[in-house]
Amino acid sequence: MNVNAHRESPHVIGIDFGTLSGRAVVVRVADGAEVGTAVHEYASGVIDDVLPATGAALPPDWALQDPDDYREVLRHAVPAALAASGVPASSVIGVGIDFTACTVLPALADGTPLCELPELRGRPHAYTKLWKHHAAQRHADRINALAHERKEPWIGRYGGKISSEWQFAKALQLLEEDPEIFARAQRWIEAADWIIWQLCGVETRNVCTAGYKAVYQDGRYPSRDYLAALNPAFPAVLDKIDHPQSPLGARAGGLTAEAAAWTGLPEGIAVAVANVDAHVTPPAANAIAPGQLLLVMGTSTCHVMNGEILAEVPGMCGVVRDGITSGSWGYEAGQSGVGDIFAWYVDHAVPPSYVERAAQRGMSVHELLSEESAAQPVGAHGLVALDWNNGNRSVLVDHELSGLIVGLTLATRPPDIYRALLESTAFGTRTIVEAFESAGVPVTELVIAGGLLKNAFLMQIYADVVNRPLSIIGSEQGPALGSAIHAAVAAGAYPDVPAAAKAMGKVHRNVYLPDPDRAYAYDALYAEYRLLHDYFGRGTNDVMHRLRTFRNQARAGGQTS
Amino acid sequence: MNVNAHRESPHVIGIDFGTLSGRAVVVRVADGAEVGTAVHEYASGVIDDVLPATGAALPPDWALQDPDDYREVLRHAVPAALAASGVPASSVIGVGIDFTACTVLPALADGTPLCELPELRGRPHAYTKLWKHHAAQRHADRINALAHERKEPWIGRYGGKISSEWQFAKALQLLEEDPEIFARAQRWIEAADWIIWQLCGVETRNVCTAGYKAVYQDGRYPSRDYLAALNPAFPAVLDKIDHPQSPLGARAGGLTAEAAAWTGLPEGIAVAVANVDAHVTPPAANAIAPGQLLLVMGTSTCHVMNGEILAEVPGMCGVVRDGITSGSWGYEAGQSGVGDIFAWYVDHAVPPSYVERAAQRGMSVHELLSEESAAQPVGAHGLVALDWNNGNRSVLVDHELSGLIVGLTLATRPPDIYRALLESTAFGTRTIVEAFESAGVPVTELVIAGGLLKNAFLMQIYADVVNRPLSIIGSEQGPALGSAIHAAVAAGAYPDVPAAAKAMGKVHRNVYLPDPDRAYAYDALYAEYRLLHDYFGRGTNDVMHRLRTFRNQARAGGQTS
Repeated sequence: MNVNAHRESPHVIGIDFGTLSGRAVVVRVADGAEVGTAVHEYASGVIDDVLPATGAALPPDWALQDPDDYREVLRHAVPAALAASGVPASSVIGVGIDFTACTVLPALADGTPLCELPELRGRPHAYTKLWKHHAAQRHADRINALAHERKEPWIGRYGGKISSEWQFAKALQLLEEDPEIFARAQRWIEAADWIIWQLCGVETRNVCTAGYKAVYQDGRYPSRDYLAALNPAFPAVLDKIDHPQSPLGARAGGLTAEAAAWTGLPEGIAVAVANVDAHVTPPAANAIAPGQLLLVMGTSTCHVMNGEILAEVPGMCGVVRDGITSGSWGYEAGQSGVGDIFAWYVDHAVPPSYVERAAQRGMSVHELLSEESAAQPVGAHGLVALDWNNGNRSVLVDHELSGLIVGLTLATRPPDIYRALLESTAFGTRTIVEAFESAGVPVTELVIAGGLLKNAFLMQIYADVVNRPLSIIGSEQGPALGSAIHAAVAAGAYPDVPAAAKAMGKVHRNVYLPDPDRAYAYDALYAEYRLLHDYFGRGTNDVMHRLRTFRNQARAGGQTS
Repeated sequence: MNVNAHRESPHVIGIDFGTLSGRAVVVRVADGAEVGTAVHEYASGVIDDVLPATGAALPPDWALQDPDDYREVLRHAVPAALAASGVPASSVIGVGIDFTACTVLPALADGTPLCELPELRGRPHAYTKLWKHHAAQRHADRINALAHERKEPWIGRYGGKISSEWQFAKALQLLEEDPEIFARAQRWIEAADWIIWQLCGVETRNVCTAGYKAVYQDGRYPSRDYLAALNPAFPAVLDKIDHPQSPLGARAGGLTAEAAAWTGLPEGIAVAVANVDAHVTPPAANAIAPGQLLLVMGTSTCHVMNGEILAEVPGMCGVVRDGITSGSWGYEAGQSGVGDIFAWYVDHAVPPSYVERAAQRGMSVHELLSEESAAQPVGAHGLVALDWNNGNRSVLVDHELSGLIVGLTLATRPPDIYRALLESTAFGTRTIVEAFESAGVPVTELVIAGGLLKNAFLMQIYADVVNRPLSIIGSEQGPALGSAIHAAVAAGAYPDVPAAAKAMGKVHRNVYLPDPDRAYAYDALYAEYRLLHDYFGRGTNDVMHRLRTFRNQARAGGQTS
């Protein structure tokens, strides 16, 4: 490395733009030590009710943001983190960011968001569409149907299905619902790339969002022919997104005088190409070798892993060349519901006696149920659940599936169900692991990041169910640390991301090892899970779809009682 | 009728011997008015932990009673009911009883229970085995396997399976675990018949328990050959149970001087032949016509109905000639878990917010959840459940099945699940109704008795799901009223049970009528129930059995965590 320990120790800043706030972390380049952090909440948060500029109600499933909230993070969180760290601004040699994705906005050619034009301030489509804007499902459905009909080569790289969250679905909705905004948008850009533009004054496009969210494969976007078949005016979207691709860890440019004034950082320091929150985390855990499957476990789980070969893994969210680390195929898969299933259970199905007991013992209900669950032998609850309360992304790609629990008796108690739900998500991860391996992409180790790693019992279940060692990230700010690593590379402190990850990434290896007896016992339960998984998930019994249809019809105007 | 309204109005007494107590009700013969009632709890209750005489622990699944507790009901509840009624003892012309069944005890030839012999006081097998004594399952399994192997003609009349609760299973356990007690038992007798013996000094055997609990069909018990194949010593059981059968409503004898002293009733008044609690209830609801299916709905549901023809209905508990009303075939079916599933849910899966809200509104959690459930259109919860948390009696006869719920989402709330559970039991009843009809036994009306009839929302669900009018019994003491009706017939006040039921039975007809729209909507949900019912219940996927096996193995000595 290029750092001279005898001079002032250099630092980098990683900024993680989340759903409700942005977090800046000051990181020492030499060893990845996190020396200061600050969080700034977005003033407008998630705009999903009414548009503040007009007070007009938004339709269901909309989720917008105001891009100036992102600039405010630069103005407040960065100086605050620096102040908290106590290190001089002059020691900062680079800045990197990661963002939620696909979070995308229309802009002018100079980067001005359309929503910042006074005459468009009252137009919802002029704003950033947040990742969880889910109002473009019917556009996504058309995108997918046509792709299969035309046998588009890229569809297989996304598990056979493009999400309504992604760039083309959101752009098609924009075109068809507000064609004037579509026409005036000279750029259609990920917020990740847009904030980099704000920092260094230069438009860049990172390979990660281009590949995972904008269907950029083998050097090209979907063809004009295909887009025209969706809507004759739609090929124009290509002009709004076309731009040379920048590799992860590259220098996007130097910090502008304006951005230096916002942040208090030195003008001209390196600004790294943008990243996505999940995909930037493997370097933070130094888990970028092929076979190291990193799970970002929170309300849902995102699985990211480098592979040496290109394979079409069933149900994956995407496989992108250089999408996680340059030189590898970056795979992404996901489970739509994990922590939020546990939270749903605790919030809506745990009786007062447990809530009171947890309070008396000064612990959370999750902790109490985990403790009591852990006292059971594998299988003693007699239950199996399907972890589809929020649908299934991988490997079935079906968000209209639903949850199931079987084996209930009058003797079933909360720790039984809680454990069965924890296990169901581990079975879901094992299903993904086996899909990778069946496609020829080995998985040798699980590395865990995200809020759920604090549940040691859950971690042990995953190790036992998947029958592989479990390592855990050594940072509570994984995405920001990953962004800082990319900043260090962009600043030239390390030759590449792997070298920086080795020095700055933090992981505790093999914290949880599978127990052979439990792993053996889980094989039998997992076999039951897979049998139910295929019966309910692959069309043998489409009851879950039919129940959803009944539900929607009934809510649309049925009789009561 | 024979009652002369100008003389002192005659009365009868019905006594209902339950699991924990006995209830006596004084009933006016003319119109069935219930003029006084009293309850006496059994001092020893259910003996399922240790034997009081020795303090010795009982094995799992045992449930005994002390028969003197039944006499105590005669000594206390009858005089107390009479006192409460204010009518003179001299107005009482007869007494009838009903009992839990199969509740059976070994006795000497004079009726002395073996447990009352001082030298046998410490022997568990000398006591009454209560209906829910479940320690004879392996004996029942052998009884069933051999019956099928030998194609015994009677097995089809019990849905293909004899219960471990019944007389032969309990007797075989007695023989093989304590052959001395078996040998000393000169009589093996239902507690129902035993208490009649105590009242009138004469042994009788009622056709109801003989048919439903002792496999008495077409004038005979199972053959000596068959019994000898189970155990060479087992045919001797026939000598202990053989006795002429007495029809329901017949006079067993006159009240003895001793029993008159216990009860305060006139010596010599009519004592009716014994009845069983569920089977005695149809007359109390004046629901003894063919096609009137009476449901006794409580923790479980017992379905009883008279039919004009003999048919083998899948999964029925039994069909017995004259078993409910003389001259008809009496059918019995059952659901193993109904109210206890709802109670399980409320006790173990309802969060504090609902419990608190119910308390604030001064209602039960059941009432609150029913109210909120009732506000939903059919199908709006998107759920279907299988009502097998306590196994399935009819139509699958498989107590190792378990509960299931499908359709869970993060938006699922307690009223959704509660309603799905209520509906699942209605689907279970519809399955039984359809099994009767498919076998050629029409069901035209449901008549409801038991504690659950107080839930009007549940009643409406049953009417809509089964798509038939629902009538409800007009007495809260149905079994005791039914026993009183039999007492009136035995005393000669009416020529037969139908005539007495017409005068004394109480029913509110067509209280709940099916709503055509809801019935139509439920057809779709019921189709889903049946699909799951057959998939999980008929061997396509035996996951419920395997999960139970895993559970039992794990509990027998597995590793934890």
